[in-house]
Amino acid sequence: MEKYVGVDVGGTNLKFGIFLSDGQLIKKWSIVTDYSDHGIHMWKQICEEINKNIEKKDLRGIGIGIPGPVLENGFVEVCVNLDLHNFNPASVLKEYFPDVEIAVVNDANAAALGEQWKGSGQGYRSIGMVTLGTGVGGAIIIDGKLCCGANGLSGEIGHIRVNSDEKEECTCGGVGCVDQIASATGIVRYAKKLLMENDAESSLRMKEEFTAEDVINAAKAGDNVAEHIINHCMKYLAKALAAAAYIADPEVFIIGGGVSNAGQYLIDIIQESFNTYITLSKKKALIIKASLGNDAGIYGAAKTVIG
Amino acid sequence: MEKYVGVDVGGTNLKFGIFLSDGQLIKKWSIVTDYSDHGIHMWKQICEEINKNIEKKDLRGIGIGIPGPVLENGFVEVCVNLDLHNFNPASVLKEYFPDVEIAVVNDANAAALGEQWKGSGQGYRSIGMVTLGTGVGGAIIIDGKLCCGANGLSGEIGHIRVNSDEKEECTCGGVGCVDQIASATGIVRYAKKLLMENDAESSLRMKEEFTAEDVINAAKAGDNVAEHIINHCMKYLAKALAAAAYIADPEVFIIGGGVSNAGQYLIDIIQESFNTYITLSKKKALIIKASLGNDAGIYGAAKTVIG
Repeated sequence: MEKYVGVDVGGTNLKFGIFLSDGQLIKKWSIVTDYSDHGIHMWKQICEEINKNIEKKDLRGIGIGIPGPVLENGFVEVCVNLDLHNFNPASVLKEYFPDVEIAVVNDANAAALGEQWKGSGQGYRSIGMVTLGTGVGGAIIIDGKLCCGANGLSGEIGHIRVNSDEKEECTCGGVGCVDQIASATGIVRYAKKLLMENDAESSLRMKEEFTAEDVINAAKAGDNVAEHIINHCMKYLAKALAAAAYIADPEVFIIGGGVSNAGQYLIDIIQESFNTYITLSKKKALIIKASLGNDAGIYGAAKTVIG
Repeated sequence: MEKYVGVDVGGTNLKFGIFLSDGQLIKKWSIVTDYSDHGIHMWKQICEEINKNIEKKDLRGIGIGIPGPVLENGFVEVCVNLDLHNFNPASVLKEYFPDVEIAVVNDANAAALGEQWKGSGQGYRSIGMVTLGTGVGGAIIIDGKLCCGANGLSGEIGHIRVNSDEKEECTCGGVGCVDQIASATGIVRYAKKLLMENDAESSLRMKEEFTAEDVINAAKAGDNVAEHIINHCMKYLAKALAAAAYIADPEVFIIGGGVSNAGQYLIDIIQESFNTYITLSKKKALIIKASLGNDAGIYGAAKTVIG
């Protein structure tokens, strides 16, 4: 039976999924990424896992999602989190699988393709995908097609400058990126700053350390400070989404990533703030939650070779 | 001989161009727009001009550029400058020209198509078009195709929020839009504000009234205050272009509209500022000047029916 593999390369885990041509996911698993020695062992890990789990005669294609900008020719300049520089993932994998179709896609782009194919993006022709995790990732699908961009920057919503009050530098070298305020990291950072700056009562003060999830849960429970934090951070995300709407104007923005587990509560906050920024049209893009969770990447990566 | 008409509907003038199928412009002219009575006389003007100038048997198509968001079905909710509301330009023109192909396109989109077809965008597959005139208009072409958007907002770069210090409202109802600071109107407004706020010596103080062109000319001549004004206003444009790059990532941004007559001097300022915002990639989109001037709109409108 024809089988396809979707691989999602992450800084922590390598996720694998085996798919049939109709998109049925028949097996999924993950292993810890070995990113020692500038990630050279990782390729061996990937190939061994595929070989162990699929008979060679069945394997038709491997799609691989990479956490970094992928140029049109498949070249990757840098994966910051993996300390990998200037490489071509397809060339590397071709050495191990010379007769198999290999496709390389940015991980956020993969998530967007996955959500469009089998997730909450089904039925939409144009999609803005945003992943709120350690950082803010994103991707744009227009007229059913991934917008890949001329310089691998398409969909990098996280690096739109939205906060002119920011003083610290973003990992990208810029200052005031949405990544710095609307990611899980950014929410915690802003929360700590705010709690330091004033004495307002908040359940967040009870913990020595807290996560973005803790802040969201406190906000849901009616903690005023936590509510302010979430509204503030999501306002900047909404501002970036509005910029995306004024450029690519998708039908829908899909919010994924760990932070999106906060559910409809968070989606409503983003939608409300987004609407205030879209003053030029009565029709506003819909903000919805991603539905494939951590599997979006393997779905999308597989889709690139299933076609 | 097969002929095609491109019409550029503006608040001041109606511009017409007659084209052959290879894109040769064989005649162009303009008349003053009669936008009285909510613009109902304008349609008659357009039809009469076309009838007067082309024999019916030669006329194959009419493309019409409209200064407002055009929905996918060709419907226009509003043209603010013409006081026109909720109409379908193609339906109106079809009554006069039942056997002729009619296409409707947003005017900034038309300018982008024109520049891509016969202007400085030739050879580029993905283009961000920006027109700096009374307002800031824009359009996005991706993979050779106009990005029309789900809500008629695609390419409305002018309404990306870039200036969090802004206090006044933009015509769109928002606050801090790039339209308010990088348009000809915006440049003059900021210049007046700055001259009011301090006593720095400037040649601009010699005039009772001045235009954006005057400010640019003073800057070119080495007037420090004028230089500061232009750098400041273009910084916000560059910030919006960077947002566009992080979304649609075109190969090139084409700067058109009256302000772009300032030429390479202005382009260099925009490029330099833009580069500082694109921290995620070494490769940056190129900023170039439009080359069709006021004719871009009729070229692009005609292109929509020449195909």
